[in-house]
Amino acid sequence: MAASSTEKLAAWIAQLKPQDLRPQVRAAAVKSFINYVGCAIGGHGHEATQKVLNAYHAIPQAAGTCTVLGNKIKVDPLQAALVNAVASHIHDYDDTHLSTVIHPTTAVASALLAYSDATDTPISGSDFITALVAGIEVQCLLGIAVYPSHYRRGWHITASVGSIGTAIAVAKAMGLTQEQLVNTIGIASTQVSGMRIHFGSHAKPLGVGFAAQSGLQSAYLAKGGMTAAPNSLEGPRGWIECVCPDTESAWDKLPKYTESLIDGRGIDGDGVTETEKNTFKPYPCGIVIHPAIDGCSQLKADGIGADEIESIELSVHALVLELTGRKFPKDGLQAKFSVYHGAACGLLFGKATPTEYTDDAVSQTADLRDKTIATVDGKIRPDECHIVVKTKSGTHEKHVDHAMGSLNNPMSNEQFQQKFDDQVTPVIGQDGCTKLFSSIGNIMGAADVRKVIQVG
Amino acid sequence: MAASSTEKLAAWIAQLKPQDLRPQVRAAAVKSFINYVGCAIGGHGHEATQKVLNAYHAIPQAAGTCTVLGNKIKVDPLQAALVNAVASHIHDYDDTHLSTVIHPTTAVASALLAYSDATDTPISGSDFITALVAGIEVQCLLGIAVYPSHYRRGWHITASVGSIGTAIAVAKAMGLTQEQLVNTIGIASTQVSGMRIHFGSHAKPLGVGFAAQSGLQSAYLAKGGMTAAPNSLEGPRGWIECVCPDTESAWDKLPKYTESLIDGRGIDGDGVTETEKNTFKPYPCGIVIHPAIDGCSQLKADGIGADEIESIELSVHALVLELTGRKFPKDGLQAKFSVYHGAACGLLFGKATPTEYTDDAVSQTADLRDKTIATVDGKIRPDECHIVVKTKSGTHEKHVDHAMGSLNNPMSNEQFQQKFDDQVTPVIGQDGCTKLFSSIGNIMGAADVRKVIQVG
Repeated sequence: MAASSTEKLAAWIAQLKPQDLRPQVRAAAVKSFINYVGCAIGGHGHEATQKVLNAYHAIPQAAGTCTVLGNKIKVDPLQAALVNAVASHIHDYDDTHLSTVIHPTTAVASALLAYSDATDTPISGSDFITALVAGIEVQCLLGIAVYPSHYRRGWHITASVGSIGTAIAVAKAMGLTQEQLVNTIGIASTQVSGMRIHFGSHAKPLGVGFAAQSGLQSAYLAKGGMTAAPNSLEGPRGWIECVCPDTESAWDKLPKYTESLIDGRGIDGDGVTETEKNTFKPYPCGIVIHPAIDGCSQLKADGIGADEIESIELSVHALVLELTGRKFPKDGLQAKFSVYHGAACGLLFGKATPTEYTDDAVSQTADLRDKTIATVDGKIRPDECHIVVKTKSGTHEKHVDHAMGSLNNPMSNEQFQQKFDDQVTPVIGQDGCTKLFSSIGNIMGAADVRKVIQVG
Repeated sequence: MAASSTEKLAAWIAQLKPQDLRPQVRAAAVKSFINYVGCAIGGHGHEATQKVLNAYHAIPQAAGTCTVLGNKIKVDPLQAALVNAVASHIHDYDDTHLSTVIHPTTAVASALLAYSDATDTPISGSDFITALVAGIEVQCLLGIAVYPSHYRRGWHITASVGSIGTAIAVAKAMGLTQEQLVNTIGIASTQVSGMRIHFGSHAKPLGVGFAAQSGLQSAYLAKGGMTAAPNSLEGPRGWIECVCPDTESAWDKLPKYTESLIDGRGIDGDGVTETEKNTFKPYPCGIVIHPAIDGCSQLKADGIGADEIESIELSVHALVLELTGRKFPKDGLQAKFSVYHGAACGLLFGKATPTEYTDDAVSQTADLRDKTIATVDGKIRPDECHIVVKTKSGTHEKHVDHAMGSLNNPMSNEQFQQKFDDQVTPVIGQDGCTKLFSSIGNIMGAADVRKVIQVG
């Protein structure tokens, strides 16, 4: 019987070695991990993260061994995986794989860190990064195979596909065999979390936390000998059939993309990995809002005063209103899905950092939001927008071709480090922050990934 | 804004009191719980259950406080919920809500027991049973709303709907408010586990274990203040849209069934709860196989020798071949989905207990399976079958109108207790078994449900 795509992916994962990763892939993975740690520390104090920790405090357990980033306390690995994923996702500041809108590092790195803390055998930095890449690559491959119908139906793809990527990464770090990897994929793929109806509530980051937790647990269970179907992804009544309305299309894509992953051509045929296509957000909100924030911040820098504005017209891609059309967000979490709040932040504050996503900041943008009209323009790309602001003195226009943070206009290294600093320095101080940034940057040479994280 | 069905269900759950349950409902719930405990103890020694415990042993944690039925060891509540659900489901011997093929007690009781063990405040027997009924009722209601398209697509409905029923039951036992119950439903419904492709592997009972675990965790998280969408079940990009291909039908049914649950008419309009419609299996395998086992056992009792059989013809309902059409099961787990093995057990052994579902027993039925032809007859119901056996001496026919264990032909009280004894006595002895059966039978008067379970 011919091998299933599930089995072929397992074989690829089992054989992947650190030296197989080109320098660009390693660099992209390390950068993703730095961004992840910054976001997790930046989100550790959020009330959602604290509530999860409080909830877990009510569940009897011993003192754990696993780090909660930004916290002194230790918890068990399943809790650590969930809490760190919630913290790293809560500000919507984590990385983005643009073609699927997956945040690919969040669940995967959270579970990998928890496993690294829990195991007796130290995980080296290069094994950690190799496992991270395996998880990101397969996760994004599966995401591309089921996108867009899976996402349109309502699944929050970061969580719903993330559990599989997470399980693969942990299983790789555990050194599981191909057969155990097949079982890992099966056990993880039968747990699907994350729905878009929860955008704007705690259940959104929780979904990503569940992905981290179930992925981690799946690898432990497969290591313990638990079995699953050998064709869990594509077989009848399996993962694709359950989660992807456009089933035929995904069935067609999965074997093709599996082949192009394995032979190194890459999904787009350009030899570039999905890890390298990962991007980093300058603003902690839905990525499709970013062009509007860019343009409005530039208009503020051009000297337009918020109090003289009479109207704001945004011409945007259709996804902007589908995903972020909330005109009246009731708090900071909901404001992450409001292009109106984002645009107003640009014009009012000239920036959109976590400080502009507090409940208080949301009430400050009410007046400008009222004056804003957003219209879909079929010719505009998701990372583009056109803005017309009318004031008493006249009409001012701004066109953003590629939002900052997109593949065509990434943050500079300085901006990237500044984003990390902004989140980490308030928690562990400037000195610790600088050491941590450097330590993670050198992770490929580390003998024990635990020590990489503990310098801060 | 009008209350959503999610909110109405939460209100019903929050207000439900032990005295609201008619004696028949209590009795049905207690019986379901007895059957559950028997199955969990009966499955505790299965290699799948032991592998889960071994896997968990590799996850660092302290000595827990929660019972693993049939075992001496204690684990933490999330692990206990999963292990007990796996053990109780592994033999496919657990209860069945026939109109949805949900095993309604398995995940719910596992999580309730774990919570009862973990909390400082003792849960009384009547509160436990009330919580169990709340979980079973809403779980079955949701199952009926999404059945059959949800199940046909590939979701294992016991697990996929079970997480919500489980969360509701635990939240009820915790005494959560209506608002917290809305969040509980949202947090649980965004975690969907269990796919039918895994039938015949460990990932099947694991799916039910994940439902128990995620339901339990959801209640803890909602109690800790985590929020979710107020219309998670029926809202756009919510639970129904994600998991039910026949979305319009489920959207139509949910508010109707919610109203009939709340006003006491019941989903069928006969005033009978879904708890009362729960049934108990005499055989540890797919329920649609049961009529064939009945009839073939009767033919053996009539004096037909297995060695004189030339051919066996089974006329069955379409679901029998869809669910249990495996002619060449490779082990005991796969044989649970083989009507051929079930029929052969009847003719060869005159019974089908866990002993007839060992790998060894499966090899013994190969010859009779080869001689069997199963054909779908559109006039035959799922709990009915017609059997024609040809031997050297002639043709023998048997018609089974309602399989034993179906609503129209339940096991007698003696048979029900015998099923419990068969599973429990080998583990804790005859004396302990008798005490445990009686103790659970008197659960409604117990001040602390922990003591109900610990008599064995």
